[in-house]
Amino acid sequence: MALKSKDIIGIEQLDADELELILSTAASFKEVSAREIKKVPTLRGKTVINLFYEPSTRTRTSFEIAAKRMSADAVNISASTSSVVKGETLKDTARNIEAMKPDCIVIRHSSSGTPAMLAGYVACSVINAGDGAHEHPSQALLDMMTVKERKGGFAGLKVAIIGDIAHSRVARSNIYGFSKLGASVTVAGPAMMMPPGIESLGCTATTDMAKAIRDADVIMMLRIQLERQSGSCFPSVREYASLYGLDEAKLKWAKDDVIILHPGPINRGVEISSAVADGPYSLILDQVTNGVAVRMALFYLLIGGTRENA
Amino acid sequence: MALKSKDIIGIEQLDADELELILSTAASFKEVSAREIKKVPTLRGKTVINLFYEPSTRTRTSFEIAAKRMSADAVNISASTSSVVKGETLKDTARNIEAMKPDCIVIRHSSSGTPAMLAGYVACSVINAGDGAHEHPSQALLDMMTVKERKGGFAGLKVAIIGDIAHSRVARSNIYGFSKLGASVTVAGPAMMMPPGIESLGCTATTDMAKAIRDADVIMMLRIQLERQSGSCFPSVREYASLYGLDEAKLKWAKDDVIILHPGPINRGVEISSAVADGPYSLILDQVTNGVAVRMALFYLLIGGTRENA
Amino acid sequence: MALKSKDIIGIEQLDADELELILSTAASFKEVSAREIKKVPTLRGKTVINLFYEPSTRTRTSFEIAAKRMSADAVNISASTSSVVKGETLKDTARNIEAMKPDCIVIRHSSSGTPAMLAGYVACSVINAGDGAHEHPSQALLDMMTVKERKGGFAGLKVAIIGDIAHSRVARSNIYGFSKLGASVTVAGPAMMMPPGIESLGCTATTDMAKAIRDADVIMMLRIQLERQSGSCFPSVREYASLYGLDEAKLKWAKDDVIILHPGPINRGVEISSAVADGPYSLILDQVTNGVAVRMALFYLLIGGTRENA
Repeated sequence: MALKSKDIIGIEQLDADELELILSTAASFKEVSAREIKKVPTLRGKTVINLFYEPSTRTRTSFEIAAKRMSADAVNISASTSSVVKGETLKDTARNIEAMKPDCIVIRHSSSGTPAMLAGYVACSVINAGDGAHEHPSQALLDMMTVKERKGGFAGLKVAIIGDIAHSRVARSNIYGFSKLGASVTVAGPAMMMPPGIESLGCTATTDMAKAIRDADVIMMLRIQLERQSGSCFPSVREYASLYGLDEAKLKWAKDDVIILHPGPINRGVEISSAVADGPYSLILDQVTNGVAVRMALFYLLIGGTRENA
Repeated sequence: MALKSKDIIGIEQLDADELELILSTAASFKEVSAREIKKVPTLRGKTVINLFYEPSTRTRTSFEIAAKRMSADAVNISASTSSVVKGETLKDTARNIEAMKPDCIVIRHSSSGTPAMLAGYVACSVINAGDGAHEHPSQALLDMMTVKERKGGFAGLKVAIIGDIAHSRVARSNIYGFSKLGASVTVAGPAMMMPPGIESLGCTATTDMAKAIRDADVIMMLRIQLERQSGSCFPSVREYASLYGLDEAKLKWAKDDVIILHPGPINRGVEISSAVADGPYSLILDQVTNGVAVRMALFYLLIGGTRENA
Repeated sequence: MALKSKDIIGIEQLDADELELILSTAASFKEVSAREIKKVPTLRGKTVINLFYEPSTRTRTSFEIAAKRMSADAVNISASTSSVVKGETLKDTARNIEAMKPDCIVIRHSSSGTPAMLAGYVACSVINAGDGAHEHPSQALLDMMTVKERKGGFAGLKVAIIGDIAHSRVARSNIYGFSKLGASVTVAGPAMMMPPGIESLGCTATTDMAKAIRDADVIMMLRIQLERQSGSCFPSVREYASLYGLDEAKLKWAKDDVIILHPGPINRGVEISSAVADGPYSLILDQVTNGVAVRMALFYLLIGGTRENA
């Protein structure tokens, strides 16, 4: 069993078997980060390039730590603080980087579709670390890993995703992932944040948060991009928090053993109350820990010499 | 013998035995940087995060080199060029970083007390790389190491620290350190740069530079933050240099075998003349070399498996 | 056989034997980047500092990858995103960095002559990664390596360098290099971009592109710095492209087996047409691949313990 593609562009392109393969591989690598010596020689002599066109400390750090714990060499290229481009086309940037013989390029870009384009330009592996409002597959995989650890599996689970669905790559990747693995997904948010036709991805949609989290096994709260909202999508932060923020009162609607996820960074008192974020149902920090394990697994499966077509 | 705390927050918290332990450990690691192969496998598989909220090339570089020469993985997070926070609380940032299982977080922050707060939030070790006007313990340790190399010990030494005492974390850390080790410390600077009650830290204070350096064994000149001074603390740079700058004339007041320290970067012709900075009594570059050794020692003592409560 | 200097400041200072030594060493290291495990232990325990005062993603990345594939520790210092200096002199910066015991400092600076000054201040090796309009020796070496791979040698070759000769460190380094190795070099560009007396470097100069590339074995197109040109050196981009841009029509003037080089990043449709850049004569990506090999060779020859005076 191996991944079918040289790249991880989105959860959309992965089938259930591949998702399960990644999750079980990640579970086996998680133990490395718990050791006294947190390092395996598996990817010694491999080169990973982190090509970040959008700043992202936590995702970049997670990929960098994952690469280093696998003994790969990690090189960071930050388009925001450098002259990556000087008007160069993505294709030329891609081929130039490829000519230095990296094994994997991890790319974050504000435009949807850029990682897929990059993957078409280069022979090495590409991992999408978030592209526009499209996908953020490694985030969704760490979410799935966290759920699987707690719930054992996905069949019959009710997953609620709450927030700005329209602009969330995290939501899209998770809708694909959880539905492929047998869970049922309901998304909820204000009407202005619900993209028309979202149900076609395999979920139920509602503007009623109560409906979404009623009997939910998993609640995933999305970050409100306060810095991007200028009163356009909802009247006020207070109103948003009141209608769509998760607090202890709303939490009672969910199942007794519900678990709470959030991709971080959290806005305390906006989409999630501190009591819930720090409470017994929250797995927010487990998600971060699992993020390193998932990224180690992706590197291993893509460039560790075990890919089907490798 | 081992350190008592998992963290290095300030010299204030360390006792004389711990200071001596760090200095003797640093002395033993100094030799590594003089080798043909400047690397020991001691911290293989350990992860060090350099979390710098204030830009600081030289301190960050010193910690990074120290980590790499110990074979640890070093990951840099620079809050000035990235989105570390997005409005996130320090506590959330801390717990998120901790969830990636680092062994040590090195933090620099413009606010006094931030490293102590961070240390309370995480189970891993924290090293204060400078916080506001509070402490800069690794700098003071490299200063003490440099003095010990030359003077053999501290008992009976007269140490003069000259400059903007009020805003200097270097001064505070060194007052604690040298006085704990048996030296007597005198600080001097313009009245506006002398904090009331500084004597309570264990030093003598004066506005008369001559008095401070008379018969001094060690003179530590502090950097004048020209970029921060806007005529508020002293009338002019020329006047400051004349009253508190160390030149060859003033140097004669000190002992014949006086040694000169400066945390760098130096303002030539302001707080120190070029003749003194480059002269036979200056140990400014020894300090930088010892900085790597001190930081290797701190990593070793904190995360090398030898801590008392480890 | 070994290099005579501890530094690589420019091709001007290297003789033909040294150039051939670097090229043959680079050829032997090229194979490392083609391996499954792209890493040799040769420079384990060596420290390389990339000190970039000008942003340069591709050159910095190439040096960093080269260092890591040799198992050296690489530390990046970017003056544009940090406080390298705080008004400090280059000499003080140099000596401070040296005091941390690096083996090699790779420096890029906007001022010609800075790497030579740095080399005079420190005992460790210095590599010029581009200084003002002066030299960019590692770029010229990868150009020479690419030509040698295809042409077997340099004797009797006609090399044409086209573009803004006056402001190009790449041109200067290549004029020195190719002429020392036995090729004849002709440079061409608009009159405003041709420095008076350029022939003294060992080349022929013309404003007639046709004359330059007639029967050329090698055509090197220089990047037009669109961001720096404000209509001062030529009337319009379209006119420049028409007179000095390389397209398929002009390409016919060259030899049948001509090869095309460009230091990148390319401006498609300005100094080079897409058909030529992506065509069968273009070796632009081979240059990038060879860049890593050349830089591995430079590190090896300078700090691998084989230098004559080492």
